[in-house]
Amino acid sequence: MKAREVVVAGVGMTRFGFFPERGIREMAAEAIWQALTDAGVKPREIETAYLGYCLGLFNGQECVPGQIVFPPVGIRGIPVTRIESACASGSVAFREAYLGVASGQYDMAVALGLEMMSRAPNTVVRKYMSGGADNELESEMGLTFPGVFGMYARRHMKDFGTTLEHLALVTVKNRGNASLNPRAHFTSPSTVEEVLSSRMVADPLRLLNCCPISDGAAAAVLTTAKKARELGKKGLIRVAASVQNSCVFDEPPDLNTFEGTVRAAEKAYETSGLGPEDIDLAEVHDCFSIAEIMHVEDLGFCKKGEGGFFTAGGHTAITGKIPVSPSGGLLGKGHPLAATGVAQIVEVVEQLRGLSGPRQVPKARVGLTHTVGGFTRGESGTVVVTILKK
Amino acid sequence: MKAREVVVAGVGMTRFGFFPERGIREMAAEAIWQALTDAGVKPREIETAYLGYCLGLFNGQECVPGQIVFPPVGIRGIPVTRIESACASGSVAFREAYLGVASGQYDMAVALGLEMMSRAPNTVVRKYMSGGADNELESEMGLTFPGVFGMYARRHMKDFGTTLEHLALVTVKNRGNASLNPRAHFTSPSTVEEVLSSRMVADPLRLLNCCPISDGAAAAVLTTAKKARELGKKGLIRVAASVQNSCVFDEPPDLNTFEGTVRAAEKAYETSGLGPEDIDLAEVHDCFSIAEIMHVEDLGFCKKGEGGFFTAGGHTAITGKIPVSPSGGLLGKGHPLAATGVAQIVEVVEQLRGLSGPRQVPKARVGLTHTVGGFTRGESGTVVVTILKK
Repeated sequence: MKAREVVVAGVGMTRFGFFPERGIREMAAEAIWQALTDAGVKPREIETAYLGYCLGLFNGQECVPGQIVFPPVGIRGIPVTRIESACASGSVAFREAYLGVASGQYDMAVALGLEMMSRAPNTVVRKYMSGGADNELESEMGLTFPGVFGMYARRHMKDFGTTLEHLALVTVKNRGNASLNPRAHFTSPSTVEEVLSSRMVADPLRLLNCCPISDGAAAAVLTTAKKARELGKKGLIRVAASVQNSCVFDEPPDLNTFEGTVRAAEKAYETSGLGPEDIDLAEVHDCFSIAEIMHVEDLGFCKKGEGGFFTAGGHTAITGKIPVSPSGGLLGKGHPLAATGVAQIVEVVEQLRGLSGPRQVPKARVGLTHTVGGFTRGESGTVVVTILKK
Repeated sequence: MKAREVVVAGVGMTRFGFFPERGIREMAAEAIWQALTDAGVKPREIETAYLGYCLGLFNGQECVPGQIVFPPVGIRGIPVTRIESACASGSVAFREAYLGVASGQYDMAVALGLEMMSRAPNTVVRKYMSGGADNELESEMGLTFPGVFGMYARRHMKDFGTTLEHLALVTVKNRGNASLNPRAHFTSPSTVEEVLSSRMVADPLRLLNCCPISDGAAAAVLTTAKKARELGKKGLIRVAASVQNSCVFDEPPDLNTFEGTVRAAEKAYETSGLGPEDIDLAEVHDCFSIAEIMHVEDLGFCKKGEGGFFTAGGHTAITGKIPVSPSGGLLGKGHPLAATGVAQIVEVVEQLRGLSGPRQVPKARVGLTHTVGGFTRGESGTVVVTILKK
């Protein structure tokens, strides 16, 4: 059965940051309305809705959050499905909406990513963020996410000569990009010195090597190419590939490779008939600076081990060979967990439309998004890679 | 695009009850292995996995629980998607797996429903169960689920003459059915006197009018009819309809009707070309005894307002016109939230195969399942109706 051609007809997002005075309804409504308006679609035309949302308990709405946030904007009576896949939740929600349209089940779908983290006390955030790893075998033993990525960083430095300055330069690039993005959590750029003198979190990762927790919402309207043309849309943005998998680590695991990223990227390239050399920009899951370095390698943008030097050479800058996270990424734009995956789609769509102002990637025609959700030592983590094409 | 014919090739479930000494891996593995063995399928043949799971925080695994429970049974490296839709989570997970196969995306899918509630203190359970309603506008005001259904009951009694004995008879029937089900939470039958003298929870609902909280897991393997025949399966159980929607209440709401149930049932009957008179047994969402009475009406098994009298007349008994919840339902078999929807599928599949022993419905060829997840005053609640046919 051949999949139908799916396009992103509209996108919208709130600013990312700390908005403890705002509720989940209000944040969601802002993103959804922007996306509907952008698509030129009325709420009642939406046939199915997917919500990525991780930690409802931060806002007391642990169950059926979709039933709470969609009706106020007039999206009623249709299937509303809430997806949780840790930091990849938004990407999985987008992919489920994509599958719904591609398979012919629905002609018009909305995907929303939402997370409000600022209202919860830090201790609560820390406790439940650890729930993204294996609680029984890891988190309870103290193996938290900064700890895991600290070990990745030390291994990469030992095996490939990656330096603390390389790690800092990822942050400097992404904070610089974020300073050009009015919807980013961090509005000020950062320097190598600031990163290297920030508080140590998990050696060698310092505070500015780690993404913040944020509030935010992002939405996308998906439909068929045919329907989009009927709506009078021009310059359609097509979903050229949408791939989801789970990592499988061999024993002993290769600490230098995200096997899930490699495999998802390979399949996305195969599906789309494109290669890493065809990608004009990529939004990559830089939860920690070392993560961007490793994923840039695993996505095929440079050779294994060269990610640090590649970054230092300016190749991932907006003006470089392959601009990585022009939005500012998780390190600069912020990381409201489930909102991130959909916000990456928003950035790529706007870039392909040429609407990104001072952070516009010249002649952008193909963009890639990449998220990783959850992580355990043995095997796991959801990886999602999406390729959008003008 | 025509959907492919989907069959349930294998099912499995744990006993429901209180098993605080067991972990989520162990419970999930028991259900999944049974389903795989029943289907004659190896773990590596599964192409996509959906997990319904509501309240991970009860077990410290709030995020990516699917990544924790599928790999130990050898289901690795594939898309694993966690669904939350309160008490309908398992039904939505089953439906997503159905859509994946029907649409041609996958040939072999597994749906797992899982919930472990016994380890959490009662106060915690109560707090987060309220999260299934609108926290800001309802739960915080004291409008909990027993309160809502107590009001439904009083209204039904006033408008239609439904009695306290009618309510009690729903429990008596379901506890009687459960006493014939070795996997049920409650193993003893109950009497009208016991129900009427049990502790008051929310007038007129007493303790035995309310389902318990439980631990449990249930799994189903879905594939195409073609593939099932290749596996040598006989007497295929087909998915004749799978419908999901959200309730929409008019203002002022009609407290006597679950509009979502009515609409989902109508669409399920239309899709399958069957009517309520063709259904040989139904597993219905009896979270409270009044809920079964109302849903039996809304599913079209009797006229609006007659549900209490219909029950008292024995028409919903295993030997009646339309056996309702021969498994014991939520009131008797128990209600591990997200496990319930998949366990309903397990019951219907076993009934259609004629394997239900002392609670076997004679000549069962068509079965229906029905769950409701979440609820808010304004609009909402996920409703899922599935029809299986031999």
